[in-house]
Amino acid sequence: MYRALRLLARSRRLARPPASASPPCPGGAAVLPLWPPNAARMASQDSFRIEYDTFGELKVPTDKYYGAQTVRSTMNFKIGGVTERMPIPVIKAFGILKRAAAEVNQDYGLDPKIASAIMKAADEVGADMCVENGISPSPTSSNDTFPTAMHIAAAMEVHEVLLPGLQKLHDALSAKSKEFAQVIKIGRTHTQDAVPLTLGQEFSGYVQQVQYAMARIKAAMPRIYELAAGGTAVGTGLNTRIGFAEKVAAKVAALTGLPFVTAPNKFEALAAHDALVELSGAMNTTACSLMKIANDIRFLGSGPRSGLGELILPENEPGSSIMPGKVNPTQCEAMTMVAAQVMGNHVAVTVGGSNGHFELNVFKPMMIKNVLHSARLLGDASVSFTENCVVGIQANTERINKLMNESLMLVTALNPHIGYDKAAKIAKTAHKKGSTLKETAMELGYLTAEQFDEWVKPKDMLGPK
Amino acid sequence: MYRALRLLARSRRLARPPASASPPCPGGAAVLPLWPPNAARMASQDSFRIEYDTFGELKVPTDKYYGAQTVRSTMNFKIGGVTERMPIPVIKAFGILKRAAAEVNQDYGLDPKIASAIMKAADEVGADMCVENGISPSPTSSNDTFPTAMHIAAAMEVHEVLLPGLQKLHDALSAKSKEFAQVIKIGRTHTQDAVPLTLGQEFSGYVQQVQYAMARIKAAMPRIYELAAGGTAVGTGLNTRIGFAEKVAAKVAALTGLPFVTAPNKFEALAAHDALVELSGAMNTTACSLMKIANDIRFLGSGPRSGLGELILPENEPGSSIMPGKVNPTQCEAMTMVAAQVMGNHVAVTVGGSNGHFELNVFKPMMIKNVLHSARLLGDASVSFTENCVVGIQANTERINKLMNESLMLVTALNPHIGYDKAAKIAKTAHKKGSTLKETAMELGYLTAEQFDEWVKPKDMLGPK
Amino acid sequence: MYRALRLLARSRRLARPPASASPPCPGGAAVLPLWPPNAARMASQDSFRIEYDTFGELKVPTDKYYGAQTVRSTMNFKIGGVTERMPIPVIKAFGILKRAAAEVNQDYGLDPKIASAIMKAADEVGADMCVENGISPSPTSSNDTFPTAMHIAAAMEVHEVLLPGLQKLHDALSAKSKEFAQVIKIGRTHTQDAVPLTLGQEFSGYVQQVQYAMARIKAAMPRIYELAAGGTAVGTGLNTRIGFAEKVAAKVAALTGLPFVTAPNKFEALAAHDALVELSGAMNTTACSLMKIANDIRFLGSGPRSGLGELILPENEPGSSIMPGKVNPTQCEAMTMVAAQVMGNHVAVTVGGSNGHFELNVFKPMMIKNVLHSARLLGDASVSFTENCVVGIQANTERINKLMNESLMLVTALNPHIGYDKAAKIAKTAHKKGSTLKETAMELGYLTAEQFDEWVKPKDMLGPK
Amino acid sequence: MYRALRLLARSRRLARPPASASPPCPGGAAVLPLWPPNAARMASQDSFRIEYDTFGELKVPTDKYYGAQTVRSTMNFKIGGVTERMPIPVIKAFGILKRAAAEVNQDYGLDPKIASAIMKAADEVGADMCVENGISPSPTSSNDTFPTAMHIAAAMEVHEVLLPGLQKLHDALSAKSKEFAQVIKIGRTHTQDAVPLTLGQEFSGYVQQVQYAMARIKAAMPRIYELAAGGTAVGTGLNTRIGFAEKVAAKVAALTGLPFVTAPNKFEALAAHDALVELSGAMNTTACSLMKIANDIRFLGSGPRSGLGELILPENEPGSSIMPGKVNPTQCEAMTMVAAQVMGNHVAVTVGGSNGHFELNVFKPMMIKNVLHSARLLGDASVSFTENCVVGIQANTERINKLMNESLMLVTALNPHIGYDKAAKIAKTAHKKGSTLKETAMELGYLTAEQFDEWVKPKDMLGPK
Repeated sequence: MYRALRLLARSRRLARPPASASPPCPGGAAVLPLWPPNAARMASQDSFRIEYDTFGELKVPTDKYYGAQTVRSTMNFKIGGVTERMPIPVIKAFGILKRAAAEVNQDYGLDPKIASAIMKAADEVGADMCVENGISPSPTSSNDTFPTAMHIAAAMEVHEVLLPGLQKLHDALSAKSKEFAQVIKIGRTHTQDAVPLTLGQEFSGYVQQVQYAMARIKAAMPRIYELAAGGTAVGTGLNTRIGFAEKVAAKVAALTGLPFVTAPNKFEALAAHDALVELSGAMNTTACSLMKIANDIRFLGSGPRSGLGELILPENEPGSSIMPGKVNPTQCEAMTMVAAQVMGNHVAVTVGGSNGHFELNVFKPMMIKNVLHSARLLGDASVSFTENCVVGIQANTERINKLMNESLMLVTALNPHIGYDKAAKIAKTAHKKGSTLKETAMELGYLTAEQFDEWVKPKDMLGPK
Repeated sequence: MYRALRLLARSRRLARPPASASPPCPGGAAVLPLWPPNAARMASQDSFRIEYDTFGELKVPTDKYYGAQTVRSTMNFKIGGVTERMPIPVIKAFGILKRAAAEVNQDYGLDPKIASAIMKAADEVGADMCVENGISPSPTSSNDTFPTAMHIAAAMEVHEVLLPGLQKLHDALSAKSKEFAQVIKIGRTHTQDAVPLTLGQEFSGYVQQVQYAMARIKAAMPRIYELAAGGTAVGTGLNTRIGFAEKVAAKVAALTGLPFVTAPNKFEALAAHDALVELSGAMNTTACSLMKIANDIRFLGSGPRSGLGELILPENEPGSSIMPGKVNPTQCEAMTMVAAQVMGNHVAVTVGGSNGHFELNVFKPMMIKNVLHSARLLGDASVSFTENCVVGIQANTERINKLMNESLMLVTALNPHIGYDKAAKIAKTAHKKGSTLKETAMELGYLTAEQFDEWVKPKDMLGPK
Repeated sequence: MYRALRLLARSRRLARPPASASPPCPGGAAVLPLWPPNAARMASQDSFRIEYDTFGELKVPTDKYYGAQTVRSTMNFKIGGVTERMPIPVIKAFGILKRAAAEVNQDYGLDPKIASAIMKAADEVGADMCVENGISPSPTSSNDTFPTAMHIAAAMEVHEVLLPGLQKLHDALSAKSKEFAQVIKIGRTHTQDAVPLTLGQEFSGYVQQVQYAMARIKAAMPRIYELAAGGTAVGTGLNTRIGFAEKVAAKVAALTGLPFVTAPNKFEALAAHDALVELSGAMNTTACSLMKIANDIRFLGSGPRSGLGELILPENEPGSSIMPGKVNPTQCEAMTMVAAQVMGNHVAVTVGGSNGHFELNVFKPMMIKNVLHSARLLGDASVSFTENCVVGIQANTERINKLMNESLMLVTALNPHIGYDKAAKIAKTAHKKGSTLKETAMELGYLTAEQFDEWVKPKDMLGPK
Repeated sequence: MYRALRLLARSRRLARPPASASPPCPGGAAVLPLWPPNAARMASQDSFRIEYDTFGELKVPTDKYYGAQTVRSTMNFKIGGVTERMPIPVIKAFGILKRAAAEVNQDYGLDPKIASAIMKAADEVGADMCVENGISPSPTSSNDTFPTAMHIAAAMEVHEVLLPGLQKLHDALSAKSKEFAQVIKIGRTHTQDAVPLTLGQEFSGYVQQVQYAMARIKAAMPRIYELAAGGTAVGTGLNTRIGFAEKVAAKVAALTGLPFVTAPNKFEALAAHDALVELSGAMNTTACSLMKIANDIRFLGSGPRSGLGELILPENEPGSSIMPGKVNPTQCEAMTMVAAQVMGNHVAVTVGGSNGHFELNVFKPMMIKNVLHSARLLGDASVSFTENCVVGIQANTERINKLMNESLMLVTALNPHIGYDKAAKIAKTAHKKGSTLKETAMELGYLTAEQFDEWVKPKDMLGPK
């Protein structure tokens, strides 16, 4: 197996220095220590093999597949500790890319025995088997392969985690919007009481936001589907064959089921990572949407007595043992924290994306780490929020009706019947006395209870006529 | 005229409080003082008329069209001084919206005399005539009209300023890419010397970036084309007629020539401004692209003696009177400052976009101000950068060739002919002695001058085979 | 006067190219058009004088003091329109710096007649007289003078606008905290009901936040007080005299009353603007504080019927004419928009601050524009928020007491008297039935009304024992 | 041991609901799964114990110390996967806090046997022993203890990692500044050639930046040293004793050797985390400084033939095997990636910090995770950058002298001797012909070689006279 992986690592040699292939990285690069120094030391003391690079010999723990370059990187980049490692989706993406390249190269004449060994190893990487074994494919990452793996990883995370998560949330919100279609409630603008709408209408806004979030992310994908592979060296494709780029992209598309194509301009694909900034921007917009939704839900569910109290949120953890009804909106809190994190990640991606120079943007590992982080957080949080909060939301109709009936905004419905002046007088008197419109109107002798009920119908205020 | 404008301001009364219509704003709202306090005071001392709101009388300068609400706002929001005013594109957009609404309302039965007066006034607003007169349409702005004006303004600024600016830049870069198609130069990765590419290829990356920038902005537009108009009150459309929303959007589309439609969900359109965050995100990505391009150009044009010196940038201002050739890359500097500003604006828009509550996001004025600011800056800077820099860029072929010939990276071309070991020895010796590959190769006796020239051909290193 | 200003502009000649002195700028530089092109054109058609630079002749409107360089800049940088001009505080700061330099140079032997003319002109610039006349001192701005003016302008804006605004807000909040010292109310954590505190305690948190905001800003000032003046050329001080830097800083200190000193390292002072990033960071933290406070106040003031309703906010504008009590929290909204803007400005400053190269950071105009913008917005908004909101806030004690008495959280006070189990049963029963603790406790027969009143005393829950 | 830890977890009971104590968190909270679901499942299948919360029984892996609440959290918050766990410094900080609280409580009368068991357990947590065992102290974290642990963790990370890292970098840069004191080189402004300075002066700017970075971070610490402990419940200190807060802070100070004090206002300490935003802001400024320095160094070290080439950077990894001298500036790249990440983290912290509501800011886990991330990255990267780059930087004096001698900027030194016109003519001719000033001056017959050497002395241009 190890031998196959070394073949894998060497499966496409380029005229350019391999060192350029190892993106140093504070944020997750293969070049960072993958385990805590202590653990690594213990392992290597017990059992290691010797590997070489042009600087000399290096000890590699026996049970690891990686080679000299990764070991050297752990010595040179002791930054951030154990959590700062190459994101797993990037490693898997390399497996896919290597398999695709091996297939293409076999077509071009690569010894089938070698090709087959590479494919086997690559499949294991792609299938996650080797990930836990610590394989770092950095020895072969390079100017065009690393950005290719970035795009594959981002696209797969979007399709496997982000979009399904958002879809799930969308569907749950949509179901709630329908469920609450008849629940008429007071609206709020400027955080102040306003005219009524249905709770279903309110939720329909959230449904629309999440639907557009998916549309935004999909709108960013065409440029993510473009692969740099074949744009070797400085993007020229030096030492590759004509057609290699297109064939590899086609193979990757076949392997993943996603519409990858070769990037029309490889210079852009290496020197800039605007596509990642764009995708991050779509996720940033999604974060705004989700923060808005989660904020609304926690405020609408605030209480149990001194808040708005219109929603009853599911109780997932023991709240106060002595005080019933205090249900902390922990899922909303997780979601808003995720949103804030995604906004921050977006700025990191933006700064990295703006600082490429000449033929290579070297902020790659930091950028992809943040993009994948955002995609995963948003996708996972959407699922968690859906399952542990949205599906269990109930309308507190008693409270909703009470607020509705106490509202002064309904007075506008009386204008056509008793005139503006009397309507205003009712509202002002009710506000002053703390009484309801109905009581006040009757007290003032402007109308009867029956008239009030006939004229003031919130359900007639829910749309155009 | 003034009378017509008052009609305009009152042209659509809603059940909800007009005050909700005046978005207070630190960042450009109509409610802010439009002139320095002193100037305003002088004018009002000399000549003013009396207007009223429910709080009492207010003095309005005679030569101003605006009314009580704007005056009251100048008293309540003394924030930021003279530059903090409602962006002109928003005022113009209100003119367009009011004209459209008047047309629709006339169809619905509005007195043609009144409708006509409104249209006349609205046209003047839309046509810029009233802008300098200080008209603030805030009295009529409201929950659905302000977001409508925001989208109209953003779409028009994108189409009139941003996209044309980017297109111009794209075309100029594209022309340069073709002009430089034969200029072979050293590539740079990790800011270090790498294998060659053509200057045309290098510029083709920039061309691709700007082309995608336009694609990204266009991809964000469908959601900008959606108008909130008709989603009165809390989005329900209370007090409007069925069909009003669709008809107004159609009229706005006809008046502007842009494919506006009515927003499918008005609750989302009032409570969230994700579409502006999305557009801002596309401009943020564009800012990354332009910063990269401008940075490259200033570094490639650095010198005249101690920099890279591959590009000769046009001299627009007197540089050093005594030192010729010192051409400060001022257009690049302006562009990178614009890029930084756009990135900052984007965060402001993001924070505002994430903080809407319930049925209304109240960060509207700040959000649209930043979006319009970014669009204008990027569009204008693209034109300035194109006209005053890109079109005048010359390749310093003498310098480019010199660097090219001195490069050690070309040694890789010798591998197939003399083997890796000898090639490496040539490179190492040349590096140590500071000599060229050719000299060294001949000195070492590995090949002849003729062989070197035949085997080391940078133009054979520019693509796949 | 004009002559004096030309002298002013030429008052310190340096060996380095004057062009380096004109910071091109999208965001406010002197080099940008200061008036709309039309206006400028009209003026120049009617009446202009001819000025020269090394490129040739230029027409300057007769009524303007500025010279060839500004005119040329308006031709080369048509970016952003009329609002993009050099911030006035920077222009004033140049007046102060020029006066200081003239005084020092007179001591060094400058012809008193010339020195006197410069000082007169400089005083007028510093005193605002010339600002409206469009004077742009850019011809003399340069590597060390521009950063000096940046620091003077920032320090003065902080002392004249930002800190007084925050102090005013602090004092008003502090007065409210005392006024509300006896108002016991329900606390809220996780937006859910919690145990009580006083409204005065709640406001004391805001007081502390604003007090620390001032402390943070002051903590950033020592590095703002450091002036680059005298660090001519690349920071070396070429062509200045020993002692010039210290003397100029002392003069500026005397003229402004602020403790300016000469920067200990002029290379840092030209090549980096970390001090502005730091100050911007302090304002960013202040923005967080103010957003928190404004958010709390608008939510606590939400209603009048369907919100929390604990605070009554002053009514500054006509709200709904028909619906009394709907007071839109417009001052809170202005403040939170300002906060979002400041957060965005901070990112722009950060990006600019990180992108300096070699001996000069060229993002100066953009950086100072954003820093001054933030300082002004925060200072002004603090005053507006104080005068139009904070001082007028009233506690809605009736509502506060009602929520307090209905709260279930007070049940904890019964534990020592009747045991945890009975207390919990009371709370659960009350929650289920929607009744109060007191009613329920009595119904359950666990205690008497007198006992409840004696044992459940919110005022005993306000601090440690 | 386990028993002691349960005691620890229960060591201070509060009147408020424990659930409020478990901050749900996408970004590192204890409530998140600490291991991949699979691993956890396997463990629990093999061997587990039963724990209970009010919802029922839960299976806890036998080898874990944590209890029901952590298990429940792993079920409710499947967000982000294995890397999203409570930062270890927070867990350690809890150990310290718990020890301090136990000591104080013993003074207040807590059974010494229990106190001793708690202290023992707490010490093990503080000493890292339990961290690897997966202890999550979340069951006891609460409104005041979590912010206390945040401040302790931040302060310790600053003192143990961040400041030592910066100091090391400062000292190395300072040594280089002295080492390069006599190396005169061309300056660059606007990325263009300018007048000379020494390489030591250039580095002195970096030294100053790092020195100020430390000063900025220290200036933020006074508010980090303030501890919320004792501000139980909503900040009132309900159920604590008078003096508890002060005593605990004093104990923590004694245990850590850092000047912790009790926060003067506990309401602020729970409801806002401005102190973390402030510290993050100081690190954001530091990130700007380090990005500037790392950018300069990589550009000054660019080459080997086609770059600026003034610095020789240490070669840490095998670069191109065939092309000597291509040393990728990987340490600079890591540093600039760290800087971008810190800028992004800062925005996340800012957004979180601005969104606290009422008596509690619930973005705590996300905020502290980002603050600790930034501190660690900056500290570690400073060490890595110092050890693997700065200390090994050599001046390429041959190249520096060559650029220096070829420079045209030195012509200014001739002004006093041959007049401006002749000097300018020399420069222009040299620029046109590509010759040196000296050659040209002699060719033009304006002076002799001896005169040139006597008059043009770069070392006389390095400071004021």
